[in-house]
Amino acid sequence: MADERPPMPKAITRKSDDFDRWYTDTVRRAELADYAPVRGCMVIRPYGYALWERIQRALDDMIKRTGHENMYFPLLIPESYLQKEAEHVKGFAPEVAWVTQGGQKQLEERLAIRPTSETIICSMFADWIHSYRDLPVLINQWCNILRWEKRTRLFLRTTEFLWQEGHTFHETRAEAAREVDTMLDCYRELAEEWLAIPVVPGRKTDSEKFAGAEYTLSIEAMMSDGWALQAGTSHQLGQNFTRAYGITYSDRGNALQHPFQTSWGLSTRIIGGLIMAHGDDAGLVMPPRVAPIQVVVVPVTRSNDPEGAAAVEEACRRLEAAAGEVRLRVDRRDGIRPGEKYNHWELRGVPLRLTVGARDLAAGQVTVTRRVDGESWTESLDGVSGRLPALLTEAQGRIWSRAEGLLRDRTVEVGSLDQLRQAFAKEPVFANAPFCERRECEEAINTAAPALTVRVLRRDRSGEAGRCLACGEPSSEVALIARAY
Amino acid sequence: MADERPPMPKAITRKSDDFDRWYTDTVRRAELADYAPVRGCMVIRPYGYALWERIQRALDDMIKRTGHENMYFPLLIPESYLQKEAEHVKGFAPEVAWVTQGGQKQLEERLAIRPTSETIICSMFADWIHSYRDLPVLINQWCNILRWEKRTRLFLRTTEFLWQEGHTFHETRAEAAREVDTMLDCYRELAEEWLAIPVVPGRKTDSEKFAGAEYTLSIEAMMSDGWALQAGTSHQLGQNFTRAYGITYSDRGNALQHPFQTSWGLSTRIIGGLIMAHGDDAGLVMPPRVAPIQVVVVPVTRSNDPEGAAAVEEACRRLEAAAGEVRLRVDRRDGIRPGEKYNHWELRGVPLRLTVGARDLAAGQVTVTRRVDGESWTESLDGVSGRLPALLTEAQGRIWSRAEGLLRDRTVEVGSLDQLRQAFAKEPVFANAPFCERRECEEAINTAAPALTVRVLRRDRSGEAGRCLACGEPSSEVALIARAY
Repeated sequence: MADERPPMPKAITRKSDDFDRWYTDTVRRAELADYAPVRGCMVIRPYGYALWERIQRALDDMIKRTGHENMYFPLLIPESYLQKEAEHVKGFAPEVAWVTQGGQKQLEERLAIRPTSETIICSMFADWIHSYRDLPVLINQWCNILRWEKRTRLFLRTTEFLWQEGHTFHETRAEAAREVDTMLDCYRELAEEWLAIPVVPGRKTDSEKFAGAEYTLSIEAMMSDGWALQAGTSHQLGQNFTRAYGITYSDRGNALQHPFQTSWGLSTRIIGGLIMAHGDDAGLVMPPRVAPIQVVVVPVTRSNDPEGAAAVEEACRRLEAAAGEVRLRVDRRDGIRPGEKYNHWELRGVPLRLTVGARDLAAGQVTVTRRVDGESWTESLDGVSGRLPALLTEAQGRIWSRAEGLLRDRTVEVGSLDQLRQAFAKEPVFANAPFCERRECEEAINTAAPALTVRVLRRDRSGEAGRCLACGEPSSEVALIARAY
Repeated sequence: MADERPPMPKAITRKSDDFDRWYTDTVRRAELADYAPVRGCMVIRPYGYALWERIQRALDDMIKRTGHENMYFPLLIPESYLQKEAEHVKGFAPEVAWVTQGGQKQLEERLAIRPTSETIICSMFADWIHSYRDLPVLINQWCNILRWEKRTRLFLRTTEFLWQEGHTFHETRAEAAREVDTMLDCYRELAEEWLAIPVVPGRKTDSEKFAGAEYTLSIEAMMSDGWALQAGTSHQLGQNFTRAYGITYSDRGNALQHPFQTSWGLSTRIIGGLIMAHGDDAGLVMPPRVAPIQVVVVPVTRSNDPEGAAAVEEACRRLEAAAGEVRLRVDRRDGIRPGEKYNHWELRGVPLRLTVGARDLAAGQVTVTRRVDGESWTESLDGVSGRLPALLTEAQGRIWSRAEGLLRDRTVEVGSLDQLRQAFAKEPVFANAPFCERRECEEAINTAAPALTVRVLRRDRSGEAGRCLACGEPSSEVALIARAY
């Protein structure tokens, strides 16, 4: 299992030359993450983990704001517990890693490393839920997950990944359905307002829903190559698990009932989404709201001008002192040329660079360079610190506009399988099409265009009357069809 | 492996009757944690996890303040990686849980679930450290750990637990030694200033040090039964691992060297320490700085006095609105008598209770009750919100004083094995004794008093000349000897 790691690339491949290699090169060279010695596992490096901490903080605040509390459930799940919900075990068993030995002894029963925690959570709450007064149960956990994936890519699909998984129990199906919607909306808010990634919310088809769910909602994001990435999912589990695990409560009329259940999760995969949505040939483009470093200051000095160097250092100190809430770092590394430093921080996607040189300073100025579009201009040294919050907001807005423009420009309406094929002739797009939801028609799409899948039935167009692109029969849903990671 | 869980106790055992049962009853009834279906594993419930989040936040801030960055390393470690440092594998192999099957296949090499991460971290940094410019490396991770323990107790010793583990690499032994001291001091600060637990810092004897370390420092806390709890450890690893894992760097003179390394960890075990240090017959006593709920407001109303009830509700709303940074909760649960609510929150150790009744309110007052000593007094409704921060600080101080008084009262000086035995005749104490550090003398102590162990060589008295309590030869260290969890 201990694989040789590929050597670190010297530079990143151009995105337009090879998107996949560009992606992996960027993740590794920007020191977000790297391969671990166990196949398909990764090490998340400080810069990548600081980004994850920002994402966690933002999402955890939303999870708490909507009334949930964090808990922690065990990593190991006895095989017998995993097997009680038939659809669920069928879906997950092929991906499970099993512990069979503990403390130098063979175990009597295999223990699964959690591929998701519905089963262990249900078996605990069977003891804790008795009455309608115990409902709703609204909990969440942040943890590591293991799924034995065949093909893996850093962040996007790894054997081990980090995530949060929410689990809730309710008196009615309607209340559970509202919860499923609420949490999908938190994911949408995280993606759009923090990560500047526009998403399409919708419902998965039956063939793509979570194993054991009644239905699954998801947000789908467009990457800058036009492919789709599923970025967060929220599941209505109905009473499937609560029946299988014997969770009952006395309702308000004193009758015994099974509660309705939801679960929802978002993982380190979203970091892959952030990279592919915004990155360019120079590397990452970090949205300021989650950027571990929002502003980098690069001092530019000459060895033959000690007075100028002193003034530059003095200006850097003033900028540090006045940074306040802005995450600002001065790059004082010795023996590295300014141009190298520019590349270093561009690769890492730092939203704003302040270049502080003696000549600019003599005029009371510093130069600002914005990562997303490379625009440069001067600001007064006295005023720039106060302007940084507004400049960061503007940078966030530009990253959003670019991603939103791409999604708009690359979204097309199609009415038939022929039109669908034509829509993808030039480049990958998001294709909207009337869709009747029948299994045969989903298969017809996959046959007509083997690389494409129905990503979701768009929530914003549910109920729209049309004729299915595959069979021509009346339809009331619009499918988003795309090529997906 | 799926054990039956013991039924939830109806009430907590008195602490003076049976300390062990009191402990477990309190953990379960206060809903901090409960047994999981896998032997020795626990579920951390919302109240316990909220406490852990407070502890994490405080310690994470210290870890970052001292220059460390968070990362994440994989859960699974190939057996061949675990085996490179001989002492280390000898110490940990008996406690490892092994993954032998993944994705329905037998693995070629067993994978250990991390019992600690030195081995995987060293194998990664062997690729990343090249020059003295790459040093120091100062990193930390928050994660779950698995050790296949024979006897387990909630929080104190569980098969799976949560912790942080810091790992650092340095140019010199002296710099590494300073790091070991710095991090032990962070643990002392966390224990004393946040958890109100006085601790004795010191060095472990060779027989008790971390497997593979040159030496181990630890903080030892006195529980309210007089037993000791090791609450955090910091290890000087020297070049033991960096040699074994082939980590080298070019030093300032361009010669190839192995860096010096440290590691240090603090786990959910500290929650067990908090419970046993401060709890009483009524349950938990939470130090305000980490208490998930700092102030609980209990409205007291009569069904035949709707006007009074309205005034009480109005006062509760004012208290909520004025809470500011104070973590305050109003207990509005229906159909539960005030006395039951008092017990409920006393069991959970909430530092201050505000009782809001119509009669007090008519005089513009509310009643404050302090958990740690049960003292009650009245405060004006108008002024109490502004006074809460000061009252919480005072409550924190009283919890600290009580614990500190106990440690002082129960610490004795002994000069011989006979005196040691006598010191423990009545009740467990912390015994200080001159100690020569020889292995035979440590064994002589264990033979003379089988339940006792040398906890640490006290840092505050290192160098003190004396005669070893066991052999009478000259000594320069003072051992802290106690009964330990």
